[in-house]
Amino acid sequence: MKKILCGLLLGAVAQGAQAAQPAPNDISLPEGYKNWQLISPSFRTDKNQLRVILGNEVAVRAAREGKVNPWPDGAILAKLAWSVKTDERWATATVPKDFVQAEFMVKDSAKYAATGGWGFARWVGKDLKPYGKDASFVQECFGCHTPVKDKDYVFTHPAPLP
Amino acid sequence: MKKILCGLLLGAVAQGAQAAQPAPNDISLPEGYKNWQLISPSFRTDKNQLRVILGNEVAVRAAREGKVNPWPDGAILAKLAWSVKTDERWATATVPKDFVQAEFMVKDSAKYAATGGWGFARWVGKDLKPYGKDASFVQECFGCHTPVKDKDYVFTHPAPLP
Repeated sequence: MKKILCGLLLGAVAQGAQAAQPAPNDISLPEGYKNWQLISPSFRTDKNQLRVILGNEVAVRAAREGKVNPWPDGAILAKLAWSVKTDERWATATVPKDFVQAEFMVKDSAKYAATGGWGFARWVGKDLKPYGKDASFVQECFGCHTPVKDKDYVFTHPAPLP
Repeated sequence: MKKILCGLLLGAVAQGAQAAQPAPNDISLPEGYKNWQLISPSFRTDKNQLRVILGNEVAVRAAREGKVNPWPDGAILAKLAWSVKTDERWATATVPKDFVQAEFMVKDSAKYAATGGWGFARWVGKDLKPYGKDASFVQECFGCHTPVKDKDYVFTHPAPLP
């Protein structure tokens, strides 16, 4: 009995590590987002966080071609954030300490018409816990992004690349 | 005659945009490096630069598996650097301004045995001008990386990812 319970528990843990729960608005954690390509880094002086904005194939193609206002349907932006520390071996380098969260903007003009054509979702901590008690959490995201409506609700500029 | 000259010039310009010159130690600018996957961001407080370290397939696999001391032969690390500015629409966000340079470390234990198993190269500015007057420039790179010999000469820790 102990053995079976242990097996069930281990199974549950393994599954948990594989798949985060969907956000309260039913957006699923996009697969393979960690391996998407670079759109831009940033540093938040108020939160003391390093961030990297990655994009799926549609988003990165748009970024490289400078066609980001509006971003095309199918584009997904992933913003990964870390708390920071001073590098142990280089005193003037600020580097990631702990993973804080992954945030996503999913462009679908029809499906997400009520929030500027973007679906929002956030997963918090290394356990990737979905953010928000219910689907209304997106109003918080959308409210913050509304001042950049003229930039298709996106703060990020693709970083200049040669 | 004018037409031919113009054609030649345009050809040269087009080629220049396609391919940067090799570094003085004959390392070529790795193809497609802009689309490599994320290893870590960093911020240099002394130089006021945002950096992103990307890796080729071999390097990223090693980073994800935590097998980076030593890094495997075939691994290439790319460090992209930007000067910074305050985001126009978010006062506490520091974001890239201009592209500064791309630096590379190419792991080949045999070929680069004299410099810790790593070949070094740097291309500067959006024109990607190779850095160094002659092949001896690598001594500058290697000198700076020697204090982290115990980390296979690499400062970067792969950023924690869930």
